[in-house]
Amino acid sequence: MAKILCVLYDDPVGGMPATYARDSLPTIARYPGGATLPTPLALDFTPGHLLGCVSGELGLRPFLQARGHTLVVTADKDGPGSVFERELPDADVVISQPFWPAYLTAARIAKAPRLKLAITAGIGSDHVDLQAAAQHGLTVAEVTYSNSISVSEHVVMMVLALVRNYLPSYQCVLDGGWNIADCVARSYDLEGMQVGVVGAGRIGSAVLRRLKPFDVGLHYTDQHRLPAATEQELGARYHPDAAALAGACDVISLHCPLHPGTEHLFDAAMLARMKRGAYLINTARGKICDRDAVVQALASGQLAGYAGDVWFPQPAPRDHPWRSMPHHGMTPHISGSSLPAQARYAAGTREILECWLDGRAIRTEYLIVDQGRLAGAGAHAYTPGDTTAGSEDAARFHP
Amino acid sequence: MAKILCVLYDDPVGGMPATYARDSLPTIARYPGGATLPTPLALDFTPGHLLGCVSGELGLRPFLQARGHTLVVTADKDGPGSVFERELPDADVVISQPFWPAYLTAARIAKAPRLKLAITAGIGSDHVDLQAAAQHGLTVAEVTYSNSISVSEHVVMMVLALVRNYLPSYQCVLDGGWNIADCVARSYDLEGMQVGVVGAGRIGSAVLRRLKPFDVGLHYTDQHRLPAATEQELGARYHPDAAALAGACDVISLHCPLHPGTEHLFDAAMLARMKRGAYLINTARGKICDRDAVVQALASGQLAGYAGDVWFPQPAPRDHPWRSMPHHGMTPHISGSSLPAQARYAAGTREILECWLDGRAIRTEYLIVDQGRLAGAGAHAYTPGDTTAGSEDAARFHP
Repeated sequence: MAKILCVLYDDPVGGMPATYARDSLPTIARYPGGATLPTPLALDFTPGHLLGCVSGELGLRPFLQARGHTLVVTADKDGPGSVFERELPDADVVISQPFWPAYLTAARIAKAPRLKLAITAGIGSDHVDLQAAAQHGLTVAEVTYSNSISVSEHVVMMVLALVRNYLPSYQCVLDGGWNIADCVARSYDLEGMQVGVVGAGRIGSAVLRRLKPFDVGLHYTDQHRLPAATEQELGARYHPDAAALAGACDVISLHCPLHPGTEHLFDAAMLARMKRGAYLINTARGKICDRDAVVQALASGQLAGYAGDVWFPQPAPRDHPWRSMPHHGMTPHISGSSLPAQARYAAGTREILECWLDGRAIRTEYLIVDQGRLAGAGAHAYTPGDTTAGSEDAARFHP
Repeated sequence: MAKILCVLYDDPVGGMPATYARDSLPTIARYPGGATLPTPLALDFTPGHLLGCVSGELGLRPFLQARGHTLVVTADKDGPGSVFERELPDADVVISQPFWPAYLTAARIAKAPRLKLAITAGIGSDHVDLQAAAQHGLTVAEVTYSNSISVSEHVVMMVLALVRNYLPSYQCVLDGGWNIADCVARSYDLEGMQVGVVGAGRIGSAVLRRLKPFDVGLHYTDQHRLPAATEQELGARYHPDAAALAGACDVISLHCPLHPGTEHLFDAAMLARMKRGAYLINTARGKICDRDAVVQALASGQLAGYAGDVWFPQPAPRDHPWRSMPHHGMTPHISGSSLPAQARYAAGTREILECWLDGRAIRTEYLIVDQGRLAGAGAHAYTPGDTTAGSEDAARFHP
């Protein structure tokens, strides 16, 4: 019998909602590109309800308990005395989410001799030391596709909010004002701007597709150039690297995974290559940007705005400078945890668990590390190495 | 020599900006559909600078003074002692903007015997009593097209912000929190939802076009059904009226002009026809909705969110209930006054003035009332009548 250790974010402050804003979720037939949605044998949850928090338990308890397995769910993930660290030594499976990552560092992996499987309920496994995971023969799997469209919507929203100066204008309403000139002195139209993505995978290409009818110029860079037909369909111009893209764009959105090759890719030098008054959106991973260089570029006016929902570490300390820098439009890491996304990644997590427990193969596209080898999605997107350094700082957050 | 009375919003609280966030505006070749941008004989302003406020003067002063005309610019527009009322009796031309409307009621028109031309620097002339204007032989012109795309971008931004619960999640960042569950308990994806527009003219159809790649179902109603080819291109389903559309949609955006036929179209009965948990966006005119019915629908949960930038009257009093109702995403009336939009409507205002002063014909598409007859754009969009009742309430706003 296996022990599954599941790290999820806390319940809402006032407890789980008695009613939800909406009665149901739209039906999505397939993912873009034709991949099927998760196909677990059964579901024990209500799609549209909170699943990603402690009480939600990703809807896994009835299924795992019926099979005699042990499920431990906690939000207490940081620091040496945390429930996560205490429960880790005899865990067979760790489940975590990018929004509230249980950092699986080399030191922690070394303390977990039974650990065989790390599942990301969502997309992006940089909170796992992938090098150490491979060395210890682990399998690392994520629910590929599950929230790519959710994130792409968040990006379009944030691009428009920065360009049009939404957040200060909304604040003007709350403050009882009507200072139109103050609101519009920084309000532009997206129309006619040059917009680029760094990384044109599932999320990046979905962003391009959604921005196309805004009559903007589209640009991208990616380590894998898109097929000519896709480039033409999107109307996007290829640049060989981020440095080449930076100077061509008014808006740049990051959609590459975090690995040693992308850590701090947007540092002071890269920001200086951008046009004065450009906008930068980062829903990929916080560490792709140099934290203090972003603050400095906003203060100097080199960047007109910065938005996104990824931070390092997570949760971000209360004094993280991105909370208070000028002209930002940040959210906590939520873009991939909308209620529809939760339903999909909960179902995908169950699919992965069913496969693993039954000795069936996990979908190739879900695999980042397959029994010790960088594989499938992982080999496409990641370079070997570790990006968890500094994650102990997450323990500084106290709600 | 003519006297031109121009009512604009106040300057920024701290004075005009020393530098702007961006160095230039993108070049737009033509409007969608092929119409040309404004074609004045010359321009005396810098595109990208504030033009719609008092100091900006729409860039008109050098041109008008060189020809010997008198230009009076003021923001003081409401109440019997206002500069607008004092200067009106001998004005030949009144220029106003929807964002800071000088309400040209029948009583005011009666006090302005020399008045021949009312120009809307922007789109939407419901702040003019069109019936009285026609009776007095006035011409009413607006800068058609100038900010349609600006508004359509604002709408897509607000749809996404409401559906994804952006504003409370941003506030969580400012508050130093990381309560993911609280942020996402009301966060949905737009994907798969049914989205409809009431009015599929320039703005409504631009909204549909921009939303199409979000994989939503599209719907519209309009008094003029679109050509079959356009319906097919947009992939939008026609409904004979707003009542038929209401029940089919998860998101509805209003894009009809305000006239007696659309005043309070979205009242308690219409809101009750919508799905529980639907979202309503109104960037058309505040009076198309019943103010208190909207507040009630948000409080009961019938509406999951309401956003837009139009109010009645404008400026909205500090105690206007839309400032404090739950789940709103309102801005002051700014969507059509981005810096690029200002450059276009300032140029269009000059084009209209040049034509009128030189005795040349004003473009047909700019004309709402042509020397006393509802005409051109006006005949297409408006019904005769008056929607300015209650506008004296704007005098209650004190900055």
